[in-house]
Amino acid sequence: MEAVAARAGVSRATVSRVVNGGDGVREPLVERVRQAVEELGYVPNQAARSLVTRRHDAVAVVIAEPETKVFADPFFALQLRGISKELTAHDSQLVLLLTEGRADHARVGRYLAGGHVDGALVFSLHLDDPLPGLIHGVPTVYGGRPGWIDGSRGAVYVDCDNRGGAREAVRHLVGLGRRNIGHITGALDQTSAVDRLDGFRDVMVDADPRLIAEGDFTPGGGERAMRELLDRCPDLDAVFAANDLTAVGAMRVLRERGRRVPEDVAVVGFDDMLPFTEQADPPLTTVRQDIEEMGRLMARLLLRGLDRTASASGGLAGAPSSVVLPTTLVRRASA
Amino acid sequence: MEAVAARAGVSRATVSRVVNGGDGVREPLVERVRQAVEELGYVPNQAARSLVTRRHDAVAVVIAEPETKVFADPFFALQLRGISKELTAHDSQLVLLLTEGRADHARVGRYLAGGHVDGALVFSLHLDDPLPGLIHGVPTVYGGRPGWIDGSRGAVYVDCDNRGGAREAVRHLVGLGRRNIGHITGALDQTSAVDRLDGFRDVMVDADPRLIAEGDFTPGGGERAMRELLDRCPDLDAVFAANDLTAVGAMRVLRERGRRVPEDVAVVGFDDMLPFTEQADPPLTTVRQDIEEMGRLMARLLLRGLDRTASASGGLAGAPSSVVLPTTLVRRASA
Repeated sequence: MEAVAARAGVSRATVSRVVNGGDGVREPLVERVRQAVEELGYVPNQAARSLVTRRHDAVAVVIAEPETKVFADPFFALQLRGISKELTAHDSQLVLLLTEGRADHARVGRYLAGGHVDGALVFSLHLDDPLPGLIHGVPTVYGGRPGWIDGSRGAVYVDCDNRGGAREAVRHLVGLGRRNIGHITGALDQTSAVDRLDGFRDVMVDADPRLIAEGDFTPGGGERAMRELLDRCPDLDAVFAANDLTAVGAMRVLRERGRRVPEDVAVVGFDDMLPFTEQADPPLTTVRQDIEEMGRLMARLLLRGLDRTASASGGLAGAPSSVVLPTTLVRRASA
Repeated sequence: MEAVAARAGVSRATVSRVVNGGDGVREPLVERVRQAVEELGYVPNQAARSLVTRRHDAVAVVIAEPETKVFADPFFALQLRGISKELTAHDSQLVLLLTEGRADHARVGRYLAGGHVDGALVFSLHLDDPLPGLIHGVPTVYGGRPGWIDGSRGAVYVDCDNRGGAREAVRHLVGLGRRNIGHITGALDQTSAVDRLDGFRDVMVDADPRLIAEGDFTPGGGERAMRELLDRCPDLDAVFAANDLTAVGAMRVLRERGRRVPEDVAVVGFDDMLPFTEQADPPLTTVRQDIEEMGRLMARLLLRGLDRTASASGGLAGAPSSVVLPTTLVRRASA
C-alpha cells in the first residue's frame, strides 16, 4: 500500500479509501491511485484485478425471505427467470444469496460489500430490514418500492402499480353488484401489501374495518384470515385477496364452509401466477403483473447503470430512474 | 507485487502463484509470501484479506441444470434446505450460482476460481460437463458420484446406494409375483440413472431389452417412456421408475390407457419426495433416500475439509472420504 501511495503521490489513507470503494475521494485522485495499482502490477487475484477493470461480471440477487419461502412461492422463481435470462445475455453470473432468515442479513451485507459482485438486485424487503443500510455503496436495484425511501435517497426500483391494480379489482367487484366486500391483506411490513390495501380503501372509502383481515401472502395466511372474515361478517359476498396464494387459501375455507364461489362469495386475487390461477377451482379472476418482465427489467436497469457509472462512487449515478409497470385485470370464473 | 517479492525474498512469479492459489509452491515459501503481504499491509479488500485469513465465509452451490429445472424439481429445494441449514449454523454464506444451461459453465468456473468462495458443492453433474476440469484447485464436494472418477482422482462425494435401492425395488415387485417388469431410466448421462439401471439388471438378469425405456427424471419423460413400454410390451405388469417424478408421469399414462395401479400394473418410484409420494393417486411405493441429509452432509464434509486443509494447495487434503447413504423401501398403495 505504501508503494502504491508513493507512486500515486497520495496518502496511505487515500489509497485505502480508493481500494475500498472510493467514497469521498475526488475523481482525479481515484484515477491516479488506480493507475499506480496498475503500474505496480499488483494483481493478486480477480478481486484486485477488478480494481482496474471495475468488473466481476457477476450480480448478486438477494430475496429477503428464508430459503424455504423462496422455493415455496412461485413468484420468486418467475422473477429469477427474468433476471437469469437478462444476466446470461450479458454474460454476467447470477449469484443468489440464500439465507435462513433476517438474522443472516448482516452476513449477506458483508458478502455484498466484500467486492464479489458488480451490484445487487434486492427484493421482497420488509420495512425494518437492516440490509439496505449495510450495502450502502453497492450499486443496487430493488424489486418493489423500498419502504424507507424518501425522495432524497433516490433508490432505483422496479414495481407494478399495486394501488391502481387493487382499485381495479375492487371496482370490478362493485360492478358485479357486491356490497360486502372484504380484503385479506399481504404482509403489512411490505409496501406492496400497504399499497394494495390503500387501493382497496380508495374504492371502499367507508369500509367497516372488520372487513379487513391481515394475511401474509401465503395460502395458510389466506385460510386464517378468511375464517376471521366469515366469523366477523357472515354476510360477506366478495373478497379481494392481496395475492393469488392468499386467494387459493381463502377459497379452500369458503368451500369448507359451504360457500359457493362466485355465487355466494366472489374472489379476486393479485399477480396472475400461471398456471395456478387457470387451474384453480374455479379459475381465478386476478390482477396480472408481468413478474418475469419485472425481473428482466431490474437486471437491465442495473447493468445499464453499471455501464454508465464511470466513477468509483458506488450507487447508480446516471442510471435510469425507477419503473412502475401497469397491471391488467384478468377475468376468469371466480368473480 | 515487487515489494511483496522483495520482502519475502522470492521471485515475482512465486508471489503470483501464491496469491493465485499456491499451486506448486512449497509451504515455507507460501508462508513467507503470506507474511510479506501481511507486513506490507496491502489489504485492498476482502479478497486480499482472505490471503491472510484464507476464508471468505462463503460456499458456492452449483446445480448443473438450467435454473428452470432447479425450481421445477423439488429434489433441489430439499438438498438446498440441508445445505442452507448447515452453512448457516457455521455462519457461512450460501452462494447459489444459477445458469441457463451448460454453455454458462465456463463462466461459473471463472467465478469459482476467482477467489469469491471457500469451496463449492456441485451436484447433478452430467457426464460430459466441463465444470470439474474448470474448478481444479477449488475445494469441492460433489452430490452424487461424478462419472469421471477413477480411483486416483479421489474426488469427495455424497451419494445414496442407488444400485442397492434399485435392487430392493425390483425384488419387491418380483416378490409380488410380477413377471413382466419394466424400467424407465433416468437421464443416462448421470451416474444415479446408470446405477439404478444396473440395480434393475442385477435382479432381472435376462430382461428383454424392450422392457427398458429411457426417461430423464421428469414427469414428461416418464409419460413418453411409459407409452413406449406399453406399445412394445402390452402385457407389462410392473414398472420401476428411476425417480418419483418419472413414476407420476408413468401413472398418468397408465390411467389414460385404462390400466389400474397396482392391480394391472404395479409402480415403484425412487427418492420418496414428500408430500408428493403420499398425495399421489394411488400413494406411491418408493425407495427413500434422505435428500436433505445428503445436502447437510455435503456442506459438513466441505467445511470440515476446509478446517483441516492448512496448506494453500487447494483440494480437500485430510478431509473425510466420500459417503454413500443407505436407502429404504417405503411401501404404499402403488406396489
